[in-house]
Amino acid sequence: MAVTSHDVARLAGVSQPTVSRALRDDPRVSEATKHRVREAVNQLGYVPIEAGRALSSGRTRRIGLLVTDLDNQFYSHIIAPTHRELERLGYQLLLHTESADSETIADRLIANGLDGVILATTTAESVAPLRLHDRGVPFVYFNRTAAAVDADSTVVSPVNGLTAAVTRAVDLGHRRIGAILGPSNTSTAQGREVALRTALAEHGLALEPDYVRRGPFDTESGALSTASLLALPHPPTVIFCGNDVVAYGALNAARGAGVPVPDGISIIGFDDLPPASWPILELTTIAYDLVGMASAAAGLITRRIEQPDAPISHIQFETSFVERGTLAAPAAR
Amino acid sequence: MAVTSHDVARLAGVSQPTVSRALRDDPRVSEATKHRVREAVNQLGYVPIEAGRALSSGRTRRIGLLVTDLDNQFYSHIIAPTHRELERLGYQLLLHTESADSETIADRLIANGLDGVILATTTAESVAPLRLHDRGVPFVYFNRTAAAVDADSTVVSPVNGLTAAVTRAVDLGHRRIGAILGPSNTSTAQGREVALRTALAEHGLALEPDYVRRGPFDTESGALSTASLLALPHPPTVIFCGNDVVAYGALNAARGAGVPVPDGISIIGFDDLPPASWPILELTTIAYDLVGMASAAAGLITRRIEQPDAPISHIQFETSFVERGTLAAPAAR
Repeated sequence: MAVTSHDVARLAGVSQPTVSRALRDDPRVSEATKHRVREAVNQLGYVPIEAGRALSSGRTRRIGLLVTDLDNQFYSHIIAPTHRELERLGYQLLLHTESADSETIADRLIANGLDGVILATTTAESVAPLRLHDRGVPFVYFNRTAAAVDADSTVVSPVNGLTAAVTRAVDLGHRRIGAILGPSNTSTAQGREVALRTALAEHGLALEPDYVRRGPFDTESGALSTASLLALPHPPTVIFCGNDVVAYGALNAARGAGVPVPDGISIIGFDDLPPASWPILELTTIAYDLVGMASAAAGLITRRIEQPDAPISHIQFETSFVERGTLAAPAAR
Repeated sequence: MAVTSHDVARLAGVSQPTVSRALRDDPRVSEATKHRVREAVNQLGYVPIEAGRALSSGRTRRIGLLVTDLDNQFYSHIIAPTHRELERLGYQLLLHTESADSETIADRLIANGLDGVILATTTAESVAPLRLHDRGVPFVYFNRTAAAVDADSTVVSPVNGLTAAVTRAVDLGHRRIGAILGPSNTSTAQGREVALRTALAEHGLALEPDYVRRGPFDTESGALSTASLLALPHPPTVIFCGNDVVAYGALNAARGAGVPVPDGISIIGFDDLPPASWPILELTTIAYDLVGMASAAAGLITRRIEQPDAPISHIQFETSFVERGTLAAPAAR
């Protein structure tokens, strides 16, 4: 006859729910008890059937995280803290990537029996929030939001950081301001564009259409846009990039074109990813608590699962300007 | 009464197994059929219970990938191709990170009802292979192996790449050879150390103990080791790094110490991660088919699940030397 968790509980001298918690590595169970449970498991050769547990509780304790592309360094930096916080809360992370057909994504998320989903790729056209909402699957917006459905969210306010960055650039003498904006159907790109234009307007400046490029938040887009800006007869003297990953591409394109940074062109990122502070990059950028934001998203989704009627929370993280080596006064021309 | 997959099958005019496959986004189901199934699902408001599916088939179609640290860029570059290939094969990826207590990891992997596990963090002391083997949970070694249990594996042979790199460095005039080796309890660090020492011996050279550092495969370790090597009265003129992530740290430390690369010190990595070819890095390194290796590991684990008695496979990937901007002749001193 199959060994059950009740047999394990009896041998370990604990309750059956304690066995489940110990095997989930729940922090509420002491290390000594976990050790006793593991000993009993080993002695009896017990194999826990997680599926059985899911059927009895109606929960899988699995949270999906939807990202556009795992190769994109922005996502690799949010996966780790999200994973850690979910693990601490007794949940597991399932990664999902977007494919071309967003209708399929929503179905796949629903079909996976997830307890909840963290959406990090929302655009104005995303149907995932609508479908998840219709099916009653809890979800949280991470970084990007959509107006169509209100839900818990953790977002960044770009205003403080970009305002300070623009003030500093203008003080240094920059007047020809370039920008590589993110996709116009994302709330993040929209928010950063508005903050940038507003900050420039306060100094009587505007983004000249010739100096604006738009593209996905990735390194290739940053490189192509920068190459095209540097090829102008009078290129901008500073480029505000949609995020740090775009800025890596901008640095690559400047190096490729033989234009020194910051003496030939200044580059400013957004996100302050860990490599931004490396001595070989020294990227000037806009910082916020990215790890805290990932943890907050994990906290919001588990709260929503455990307290479905809790009021909707919008957690906003403030930004600050971090000046490093990629910003300097423009060369006199 | 609850809507079942049989109701969906009836409405869509397909069999029940086809419904399951369509909802899993199985490539064997046509897009037209998937569309019809989704329409039926939407019309009936059907919510598939994955847990029920797992109980009836005894499979969860979930594969665990065990990595040391999601912040480590090496792992972020293998997660994406592994995820893609598993998805193509109809499986899902569950990420697991190592904690201090490796006994707990094995239990957690087993408790999660995974169909199989890809182990990317194996050391000589790892108990996970033993525990998984004892419990009959299929697993594959990725990159690193352990002698204690034989299992399917995808590994890299460092010999060709390191031999060519050493020959080139010696031809350029390097005699004071530094090395930052990985942890001595990993098969990867051992293999690279042996290949490096063997290649040097062919040129009548040896690794001087003063010029050898050891540490984890991470950027901090690369930076600390390089700073200590550069502080020697007669520092090495070239440093072979345990991998590219270590080499990023070496580049940072050289920049921090004001030592130009490659004129003051040459740096050689291992892995040829995508950023290695960026114009701002131009890292000389050892390349192999990392994406192919991740796909192969995904293929091996699903084969092992579906054909438990298949013969054990060891897939070895060959390396080549990629010369870029961080290697040059040593300065005359």
